[in-house]
Amino acid sequence: MSVVLYENERIDQLYSEGVQIIQSQEVFSFSLDAVLLAHFTNVPKSGKIVDLCAGNGAIGLFLSQKTQAKITGIEIQERLADMARRSVALNQLTEQMDILTLPLQQGKQVIPADSVDLVTCNPPYFKELPTSTKNPNPHLAIARHEIETTLEEVIKEASRQLKMMGKFSMVHRPDRLLEIIDLMNRYKIAPKRIQFVYPKQHKEANILLIEGIRHGKKEGLKILPPLYVYGEDNQYLPEVKQILYGN
Amino acid sequence: MSVVLYENERIDQLYSEGVQIIQSQEVFSFSLDAVLLAHFTNVPKSGKIVDLCAGNGAIGLFLSQKTQAKITGIEIQERLADMARRSVALNQLTEQMDILTLPLQQGKQVIPADSVDLVTCNPPYFKELPTSTKNPNPHLAIARHEIETTLEEVIKEASRQLKMMGKFSMVHRPDRLLEIIDLMNRYKIAPKRIQFVYPKQHKEANILLIEGIRHGKKEGLKILPPLYVYGEDNQYLPEVKQILYGN
Repeated sequence: MSVVLYENERIDQLYSEGVQIIQSQEVFSFSLDAVLLAHFTNVPKSGKIVDLCAGNGAIGLFLSQKTQAKITGIEIQERLADMARRSVALNQLTEQMDILTLPLQQGKQVIPADSVDLVTCNPPYFKELPTSTKNPNPHLAIARHEIETTLEEVIKEASRQLKMMGKFSMVHRPDRLLEIIDLMNRYKIAPKRIQFVYPKQHKEANILLIEGIRHGKKEGLKILPPLYVYGEDNQYLPEVKQILYGN
Repeated sequence: MSVVLYENERIDQLYSEGVQIIQSQEVFSFSLDAVLLAHFTNVPKSGKIVDLCAGNGAIGLFLSQKTQAKITGIEIQERLADMARRSVALNQLTEQMDILTLPLQQGKQVIPADSVDLVTCNPPYFKELPTSTKNPNPHLAIARHEIETTLEEVIKEASRQLKMMGKFSMVHRPDRLLEIIDLMNRYKIAPKRIQFVYPKQHKEANILLIEGIRHGKKEGLKILPPLYVYGEDNQYLPEVKQILYGN
């Protein structure tokens, strides 16, 4: 399978998942966060998965290796959606996976209510404030700051799409945990599993993984074992290497 | 200093804090949870501290070693309050610390609103449900189950007592995190620091430490480094030994 690569694009292989992903440092590269979300998520064996804020499609591509479910990525930036579509073709996943260029606020045009088994999202982390320092590259600014969407819109749209008892799985920043819990509560998604990721020992958590169930019971939240990323030598720890490279 | 010990009571020394505490397995013994709360809490150098659900006074006794603040323990069970008072005398802390036998719902009789710098609490962890299996010993049942008070009453009373920007510090179970956050929000205490305690590696968290500020800003929650209690050999890990024994 050959695909067109544009200037400054490269193909990266995520060994543990066996997929190839087109990346570009100038436009969008998937991060460890996306890999950790794909690893954290309980993936249904079949049915329908939607990945919001899909970027270059990394999360959907990773999940495709664990399920027969149909996967739709929704991404507002056509440049990124196009990269994702070429990765879908490169991995011969056109039967299983499609990428739509669409603001997620218009999700109802393409995804019926109560129709999805799993919604995943690696959204922009940072609030769009008049004082925010944003990346001058508009592709990266949109991926990192809440310019085109907000946390509330993400959770509201996920809840609309999800079947009763469907799952929502998101990666975000721990400093927004309170807001995430408040919004999940407002949109009837009960948090069930949280995992905090710490850059290294004795440091505060800097990544939050959270899974909830639409119309789930409020009881029974679990705080999973912590995950550390780097050792004292600033190299990935074995558990993270295993997630990234599968060995 | 000599004090009266009743049948089945003993005096325990918590080495790292240098205080002696009267305990009784039949009535009440402080737990690791109380020690961890005292260690986790940011203690004001002076002013006023109230410990709700004080039990045998352990948390107040530990904190007395770190501050000049006046400390009041509020405990509904006279048998436990009496034990706490004898420990206060044993440690020659009667100038700094007093113990009141009182349901916390009647706190306003003794503690004015907006008057306290720090409220600590190691409350009963378990909901009182018709189906709950409770300890047949009523002293232990009241300490463990929400028979005489509830999480909501604890947080409401803490908020009433606290000065603006006063701190609330509590130990609880992670499976009640959502309810805790919801109630802290309702009673205007903004969570600021959370630490999860894990019994050992690769296990889910079983203790939650949380600190909030009355009328604090909602932004800036920190998830502290995780704390593990036991090693693979089921012995306390060095970090916990240090907290317990100070060496």
